[in-house]
Amino acid sequence: MKSETYNRPFYGSKDPIAALATPLAESALAIIRTSGSDIQLLAKVFSRPKALLCAPGNSIVHGWMLEAPNEINSQKSEQRKIDEVLVSVYRAPRSYTGEDSADISCHGGITAAKAVMTALKKAGFREALPGEFTFRAFMNGKLDLTRAESVMELVAAKTGRGREQAVQRLLGVLEKELSEIKIMLVELLAGIEIYLDYSEDEFLTENDESEGRLPDRHLAENAARRLKALSELWRRERLYAEGALAVLIGMPNGGKSSLFNYLLGEDRSIVTDVPGTTRDWIEACISIEDIPLRLADTAGLRPTEKLCQKDEAEKLGIERSLELLEKADIVLYVVDGEKGITNEDREYLKMCKALSLILWNKADIKKPSDLTQEELPGRLLFVSAKTGEGIQALILSIAGLLRETSGFSSDAQLDSTAGPGSLRQKELIDSALTSVEEALSLADNKEPLDIIAPLIRSAVNSLGEITGEIYNDDILEIMFNRFCVGK
Amino acid sequence: MKSETYNRPFYGSKDPIAALATPLAESALAIIRTSGSDIQLLAKVFSRPKALLCAPGNSIVHGWMLEAPNEINSQKSEQRKIDEVLVSVYRAPRSYTGEDSADISCHGGITAAKAVMTALKKAGFREALPGEFTFRAFMNGKLDLTRAESVMELVAAKTGRGREQAVQRLLGVLEKELSEIKIMLVELLAGIEIYLDYSEDEFLTENDESEGRLPDRHLAENAARRLKALSELWRRERLYAEGALAVLIGMPNGGKSSLFNYLLGEDRSIVTDVPGTTRDWIEACISIEDIPLRLADTAGLRPTEKLCQKDEAEKLGIERSLELLEKADIVLYVVDGEKGITNEDREYLKMCKALSLILWNKADIKKPSDLTQEELPGRLLFVSAKTGEGIQALILSIAGLLRETSGFSSDAQLDSTAGPGSLRQKELIDSALTSVEEALSLADNKEPLDIIAPLIRSAVNSLGEITGEIYNDDILEIMFNRFCVGK
Repeated sequence: MKSETYNRPFYGSKDPIAALATPLAESALAIIRTSGSDIQLLAKVFSRPKALLCAPGNSIVHGWMLEAPNEINSQKSEQRKIDEVLVSVYRAPRSYTGEDSADISCHGGITAAKAVMTALKKAGFREALPGEFTFRAFMNGKLDLTRAESVMELVAAKTGRGREQAVQRLLGVLEKELSEIKIMLVELLAGIEIYLDYSEDEFLTENDESEGRLPDRHLAENAARRLKALSELWRRERLYAEGALAVLIGMPNGGKSSLFNYLLGEDRSIVTDVPGTTRDWIEACISIEDIPLRLADTAGLRPTEKLCQKDEAEKLGIERSLELLEKADIVLYVVDGEKGITNEDREYLKMCKALSLILWNKADIKKPSDLTQEELPGRLLFVSAKTGEGIQALILSIAGLLRETSGFSSDAQLDSTAGPGSLRQKELIDSALTSVEEALSLADNKEPLDIIAPLIRSAVNSLGEITGEIYNDDILEIMFNRFCVGK
Repeated sequence: MKSETYNRPFYGSKDPIAALATPLAESALAIIRTSGSDIQLLAKVFSRPKALLCAPGNSIVHGWMLEAPNEINSQKSEQRKIDEVLVSVYRAPRSYTGEDSADISCHGGITAAKAVMTALKKAGFREALPGEFTFRAFMNGKLDLTRAESVMELVAAKTGRGREQAVQRLLGVLEKELSEIKIMLVELLAGIEIYLDYSEDEFLTENDESEGRLPDRHLAENAARRLKALSELWRRERLYAEGALAVLIGMPNGGKSSLFNYLLGEDRSIVTDVPGTTRDWIEACISIEDIPLRLADTAGLRPTEKLCQKDEAEKLGIERSLELLEKADIVLYVVDGEKGITNEDREYLKMCKALSLILWNKADIKKPSDLTQEELPGRLLFVSAKTGEGIQALILSIAGLLRETSGFSSDAQLDSTAGPGSLRQKELIDSALTSVEEALSLADNKEPLDIIAPLIRSAVNSLGEITGEIYNDDILEIMFNRFCVGK
């Protein structure tokens, strides 16, 4: 089996690695990150090899990146210049990975960064696996797994709140809390084991009173309480970190995009096309009454009976819009005020499972006189993307509905806490919690301590897995694979 | 007038500036660049201000970026941590701008970079204007204008060849050539002026033979020849730098996107949605027989008579496709082989002004027996995106047509040359050339030297403007405004 994967790069190898650490797009600068036995290798494709090799850690060397030397003629003067660069040199162990490493800052854009990567690969670097730099940092004891994961959280953070929570974990707040809980459990376990040792000597077996009595029970209770508190932070932090999803949907020409732009207004933080689906919807993050909201503007629905006449691409677009609807925390169904609520609108409104607000747009032009709220499957609001009428009421309604149902509180104080930063951490915390609670329940039933002890040990192990004191290669690989390349 | 623009930032101010130098998207790292009297200012929002202030040039300081201090309470301990960063410190004059400056490397993604920018602005930095770092570098004598412009060329380069040509200019190849031409012209001018001095003394006025005779005429001829060579490099370099535009167009379901993907194949260098028009077409850069090609896949045309029934957004999409068609160097009109060439296809084919290839797709399913090439407004090729049939012939046809018509040569050796890097440079070279040619022509007609001298002086000035020895604030502002922010 080994032979099959012989050449496949793997986490844990000592290969010199390189990766583009900035997005491949037009910009002022691009950074290519390298690590491993790399300064020597890098010098092969750098115009001032001696300056590079002599550079102390945490210093910057100016020069030119060169194309990789030809096999036949390795004269440096023959190597063509690629780009003028600054190389930041780091010496082990004072580097991100804990190895000798170097970051190359070249001109931004696409071609310079790609040409530098090509030269590095020819010089002997291999393209880094996702998260491989952070993996090495973990293996070299630079950070525990909660901090490692917070690095990726920081990169992926969509809201300021999400970033702040990740920073708490990067600062080690979660690690400290877990470590304190673990110390309690280890202490508890030590007490149990002393007891069991005596018990093996049949010293105390006659004493029915002490049978099943958990020594230092308060430690288990305390640990359970603190684990539960951590677990409960998960959902709330996720909501704040990822934002609630509000989907603008409706027939074409109802003014969805105008409403989208109006809502973004000055608060427009970023408009990102969702990767891979750029033609189907546009998403932007905004903040409504301190609640982070991912606002999605969809391509527009179609009258259902005419759908069969449309081409495949359009059908697919509508299917995608409907999929998005499934995921929505709140649906903003836009009605073309000039046409009123049509039968097609009613058909589509039935499909909305999430909370719906029905936005009668173009209310500046036309408002119905005979429409009653009762017959509608969602609250009706009159708005105008043109005059701004009703927009403030819309914002308050969105915030109100989300607070009622999605766990957003108006006075969230998450600042100094740090719950689990990934599903992996959350599941391990829950697993530890279950074990401790089961141990407490067994103790209540006066079950013998040798049944209780393994549960506490299992909880301790779960906590060790969270921080990475105990780890499994496969799990690490799965975990770091979710990182972006260059991190 | 001055008072109106009092607070508007302007090129040439000494304000401390900051800008995000990497694209705002999910990635490993983001760089925020600062310049000006900034180390002091930066220290206000950095966890280790003393380390930063004492840091020598070209060194790196590790620490945390902090939120800007509150007006009321400016205790550092009160400032919340934003992100763990590395700050690269540069000391004047050994920096890009020639000023004290610092680059902040923070976690990639959107929120960290934005939070750092917010803190910097609160600390007293202003957001840099486009190209303002390079503007300062120019003003501080770090580079001439041909090199300054090559910086932006490098960033915008779409092809390896484009990058290589920009690198030539960054290395100063164009500057050197221009400087040599200018020296010739200055020498010529000196000769003329000596002659005119004598002439004023009426020393030589009687000598009809020498009247209108250009002293050192070979200098002017040589300068004109070299200026012409530079000017001629422009079109060819542009083509190689920007690539020829090939537009895939046709009715829906003809298989445009499949052909697009097939042509990209392994050679797919980058797929970029054209900014602002993401929903209308996708563009990718590929290389066909060493010719860089921007291949655009359009949204699909519509049968014209049905167009009136479509909604506005669709009409707009088709209009955009037709606009793109106007710009195309070559049109790849895709016909659905199963349907054959329809009347609508013929209508649209008439609109194609550029060279057209008519691609009968799905040729693996159906080929016509009765179609003659003569009646078609472009060469017909049978292809199949499914089986790959005819694709090689298609590639050869594209390359052949472009070589015939667009100045692509099969043995282009542009490596060691460097023509003008911007339209500005090209126009000034042409202007200098026109002046020298006019001077030569006047000399041929034996016109007096005092009419000829101003033309040579004007040519010298044009060349001085290219490199920036002579400059005008407005022109500089227009020029640097085209740069990206952070450069």
